[in-house]
Amino acid sequence: MPSQPPSQRRYTPLALPQVQIEDLFWAPRQRSLIERGLPHQLDQLQRSGAVTALEQRPGPLAIPILDWGGTPQMFWDSDIAKWIEGASYALALQPDPALEEKVDALVAALAAAQQEDGYLNTYFTAHAPHQRFTNERDWHELYCAGHLTEAAVARFQVTGKRDLLEVMERYLELLRSVYGPGPGQKHGYPGHEEIELALLRLYRVTGRPEHLAFAQYFIDERGKSPNFFDEEARARGEDPAAYHQGTHQYAQAHRPVREQDQVVGHAVRAMYLYTAMADLAAQTGDQSLWAACTRLWQDLTGKRLYVTGGLGPSAHNEGFSTDYDLPNATAYAETCASVGLVFWASKMLEASGDGRYADVLEQALYNNVLAGVGLSGDRYFYDNVLESRGDHHRWEWHACPCCPPNALRLILSLGSYAYGAGESELAVHLYIQGRARAEIAGRPVELAVETRYPWEGKVAIRLGLESPLPFTLSLRIPAWSRDTRLWVGGEPVQLADCLRDGYARLERRWSPGDLVELQLDLAVRALHAHPEVRDDLGRIALQRGPLVYCLEGTDHAVPLHRIALSQKQVAALAARFKPELLGGLMVLRGEASALDTSDWDTLYRDLPARLQPQPLTAVPYAFWDHRASGAMCVWIPRSG
Amino acid sequence: MPSQPPSQRRYTPLALPQVQIEDLFWAPRQRSLIERGLPHQLDQLQRSGAVTALEQRPGPLAIPILDWGGTPQMFWDSDIAKWIEGASYALALQPDPALEEKVDALVAALAAAQQEDGYLNTYFTAHAPHQRFTNERDWHELYCAGHLTEAAVARFQVTGKRDLLEVMERYLELLRSVYGPGPGQKHGYPGHEEIELALLRLYRVTGRPEHLAFAQYFIDERGKSPNFFDEEARARGEDPAAYHQGTHQYAQAHRPVREQDQVVGHAVRAMYLYTAMADLAAQTGDQSLWAACTRLWQDLTGKRLYVTGGLGPSAHNEGFSTDYDLPNATAYAETCASVGLVFWASKMLEASGDGRYADVLEQALYNNVLAGVGLSGDRYFYDNVLESRGDHHRWEWHACPCCPPNALRLILSLGSYAYGAGESELAVHLYIQGRARAEIAGRPVELAVETRYPWEGKVAIRLGLESPLPFTLSLRIPAWSRDTRLWVGGEPVQLADCLRDGYARLERRWSPGDLVELQLDLAVRALHAHPEVRDDLGRIALQRGPLVYCLEGTDHAVPLHRIALSQKQVAALAARFKPELLGGLMVLRGEASALDTSDWDTLYRDLPARLQPQPLTAVPYAFWDHRASGAMCVWIPRSG
Repeated sequence: MPSQPPSQRRYTPLALPQVQIEDLFWAPRQRSLIERGLPHQLDQLQRSGAVTALEQRPGPLAIPILDWGGTPQMFWDSDIAKWIEGASYALALQPDPALEEKVDALVAALAAAQQEDGYLNTYFTAHAPHQRFTNERDWHELYCAGHLTEAAVARFQVTGKRDLLEVMERYLELLRSVYGPGPGQKHGYPGHEEIELALLRLYRVTGRPEHLAFAQYFIDERGKSPNFFDEEARARGEDPAAYHQGTHQYAQAHRPVREQDQVVGHAVRAMYLYTAMADLAAQTGDQSLWAACTRLWQDLTGKRLYVTGGLGPSAHNEGFSTDYDLPNATAYAETCASVGLVFWASKMLEASGDGRYADVLEQALYNNVLAGVGLSGDRYFYDNVLESRGDHHRWEWHACPCCPPNALRLILSLGSYAYGAGESELAVHLYIQGRARAEIAGRPVELAVETRYPWEGKVAIRLGLESPLPFTLSLRIPAWSRDTRLWVGGEPVQLADCLRDGYARLERRWSPGDLVELQLDLAVRALHAHPEVRDDLGRIALQRGPLVYCLEGTDHAVPLHRIALSQKQVAALAARFKPELLGGLMVLRGEASALDTSDWDTLYRDLPARLQPQPLTAVPYAFWDHRASGAMCVWIPRSG
Repeated sequence: MPSQPPSQRRYTPLALPQVQIEDLFWAPRQRSLIERGLPHQLDQLQRSGAVTALEQRPGPLAIPILDWGGTPQMFWDSDIAKWIEGASYALALQPDPALEEKVDALVAALAAAQQEDGYLNTYFTAHAPHQRFTNERDWHELYCAGHLTEAAVARFQVTGKRDLLEVMERYLELLRSVYGPGPGQKHGYPGHEEIELALLRLYRVTGRPEHLAFAQYFIDERGKSPNFFDEEARARGEDPAAYHQGTHQYAQAHRPVREQDQVVGHAVRAMYLYTAMADLAAQTGDQSLWAACTRLWQDLTGKRLYVTGGLGPSAHNEGFSTDYDLPNATAYAETCASVGLVFWASKMLEASGDGRYADVLEQALYNNVLAGVGLSGDRYFYDNVLESRGDHHRWEWHACPCCPPNALRLILSLGSYAYGAGESELAVHLYIQGRARAEIAGRPVELAVETRYPWEGKVAIRLGLESPLPFTLSLRIPAWSRDTRLWVGGEPVQLADCLRDGYARLERRWSPGDLVELQLDLAVRALHAHPEVRDDLGRIALQRGPLVYCLEGTDHAVPLHRIALSQKQVAALAARFKPELLGGLMVLRGEASALDTSDWDTLYRDLPARLQPQPLTAVPYAFWDHRASGAMCVWIPRSG
């Protein structure tokens, strides 16, 4: 898999205020997350004790049992941080003084919780001050610092407020004194990666090279021998072999990152690491690091990725298992892991400009990530199964509430994933009705996008320019769009002439008001999985555009597992927009077959089951579990 | 499902010494169990401490940790008992003074362990004398008493020795004083059923009505309200709701047995109970009890039985789960449960004379039970999966060693399951080369059976009589034999004229030397499971005669899960006898298809996998895991 090496980053995302989302697909999701998700999540963080924890000061070492029966959690600061980050994006989308006040209060509480020496982790400060920096393998100090850094960057970018940034600069100074190559320092790295990608974001905002260097240190140090986590364990008087996760693959610390070629261990940890690796490779032009990124990408997408963009099938390690092990009913496929995949894919895309990364970004975003958040904005999946007997539902909250604010911060910052600005180039990665403003050669360019994507494949883009301007407008052509049409100024353009790395590269001297029209092919596809994926043998998954579809029990009179589809029946499926259904969505309708049980009076017999006609309705996977609770399946048995 | 009610028992089994097994299928199995299984099992019982336990006397209450790290087990007496029972059958098959001495010594030790008041349970005597009869729900006093009773009966029947019988009569007298309807008695019943069927065996050997009445009491009392196990728990000061199994379905004590209509709970417990219920119904002509038996039978065979005759899919309760829940890779299907099904089926058959019960008996016996014991006689499966990735193998021993002696005692007493003597009738239930001697109207009848069944379908039976004798010779015609031929004295007999309830009923005045020839149809069948069995959807299982076949990794160059069979390919499968393979067995050979992975460079694609020709070898399930350890599957994907 040759992939363009990132001698320099190909694309820079547009800043959030430069993108308006005005469609009927994402805009309502953003609205529900702002109106209901943010208050709900803050309320839950308050109930759980995570907000009060900010005000705890060093005291008795015993960990209290809270009103709700839980105890303070060492990852709470990260949930607060993600909420602050998400709320900051909300403020970028629409001013809201009341919300801004809440964010300010949390930031003030964080600042007040910072210790004299710069340390900031409310759990360790209050409950385990003597255990600071003693078990990075299992605890989450650097992870929390990473999320707080991201929050600080987002807050600064949106509001210009430097308060949290300054708090974090101080804390990072302390961290740089603790971790590093020096003789008195810990030669270590995070047990849960996150801070690396955050430091790179911070570097780009501040331009301060110590942040780049610190990220680089963590990435380069990871997995060296002797293993840091083992040394740490010995220092605590523990036997490293007694590590409860059994293997340092769990945190991708089993070998140096440039020698890794398989996605392993805890899936969220892996995605955050790879995101930072790709970003660092693009920043520094590090070829060996980029090579590792493309190997790992190939491994994930070639052997270990659900069709929904979910990843990490096993609940055991919240992560990866073996090649082609993609069970449907027990899929863990954590929402956070798919959020992390979007991050990674966006960094691979920014580095290379290759549409294959955008395709996977879109697959994860429109399916696993979106399913993770209910339409109401205040109900969430932690794990995303691809088959259910009716007992899998979104919950209000979770003892480990990583996913809700993670999906929220991604969806509220969606605008920054949709476009990429390059040198004399503006690329459209995701087709979302609205507007984007960029600068090319110091001149303003606006794209006004009209589309009903992903329900319809037509996209019209009108260029707003002050005067004619030569540049390349790159439009992503998803690999799944087989019969794609393109017009500039009403004149058809031969795709073959301009298609490079998954983008139609329209290099022109553009004039104000120029119109580009794209027709993507949203024909329903029946996907087959690689024959080594046992759970999908003899089955197909329906996809239309970026959306994977599923069957739900509520739409069918027979149990879902008895429904089968032939290739012919797939070809006859019709997409029909149902405006009244869950805010409006495109369902697939047609005839399937159902295995007939009426003539069975034994458990086994010589004759196969008869097939009888069965009306079929498929709905986008991202919208499942919003109606009568019942069975669901993505992979449908084939009947020929 | 109308079934002939047992106004009286239709068939009585022949006593073991009346049947000779002289074939190449079962005789070697019996030999290996006698030569290697019995000594191995005794050795393991000695190593584990179960034999030494017989000599323990009341002492300190603390339970010792044994050399091997285990502790004495409250079910050990039952394993000793099953070994004595099996060894007694071995002595019936061939005299062996050394073996007899070992049995005598164990019996003497048991006799010496009996307490003044008749009590006999070496665990409670040595370790928990004050806990006698306080927790029948979880502990195994009556269960052990049942197996010891069976051992006593077998020993007496084979050797005429009354010693163990007398021990047990004394113990049972004590048990009758403890359990019963009287005001000072416990209105209880076993937590693990077994003693009921043993008492019925004892009743038939001794003719003493108190044994019949005691069995009847236990069966009638079971599941009444208030629940005995709950009362017992309260008496111990425990909360009955804290029962770790959660439900009295576990021991089929959730409601009176005559009101039960679903096979539930621990599978071995269930089989032993139903065996006793069927036997009691036949003994007493109890119509409501028989009706419960037929309902439960219909439930088991219609919804909850593996094609291999395995049952109880769940490891969680070692038993039943929900209708049609028959997972292959995680099948528990304990060997003991299938042994118990053989017991139950034989009692249903004896009661009704209906061949449908013999069909299931044979299915369980030739597949799940037989697989449970390795060809060497000293390796055993506890759980019998129908699909393995290569990590499921027979073991030498198990901390709960119920299965090895259970399968052993069944296989060594196989002769008594093969024939049934009725009024003026002799029935052949199982076709095994050898001889059977019975008496009809006081006159001796011998059947000399020649057959290579189950490898071949031809069966020749020559009648040995002193003089002409009118009686009915009933030959079982398995339901799976579609094109069955029958000849008497070389003359074809129309099956339709004589087939009743699954048997060809040949009512004749038979003469010495008369020859009956039967040709069963051993065509390979592709079985389909009821569409509600999710794990078998789109799959077929191969069966030839009574034998279910499976694929093993060692015979195939591609992973088994990629192999698929069409109906046409099934029809072309050829049975070929391989004399050199595992002592000689019939394999199925032919062409299948394998999903081709060579042209896959993605995880998902629009085109289905190509099929390529793939030589296929199927071996009987009972013989799997005897060669290179690898994958195995019974249910093979269909390719059309």
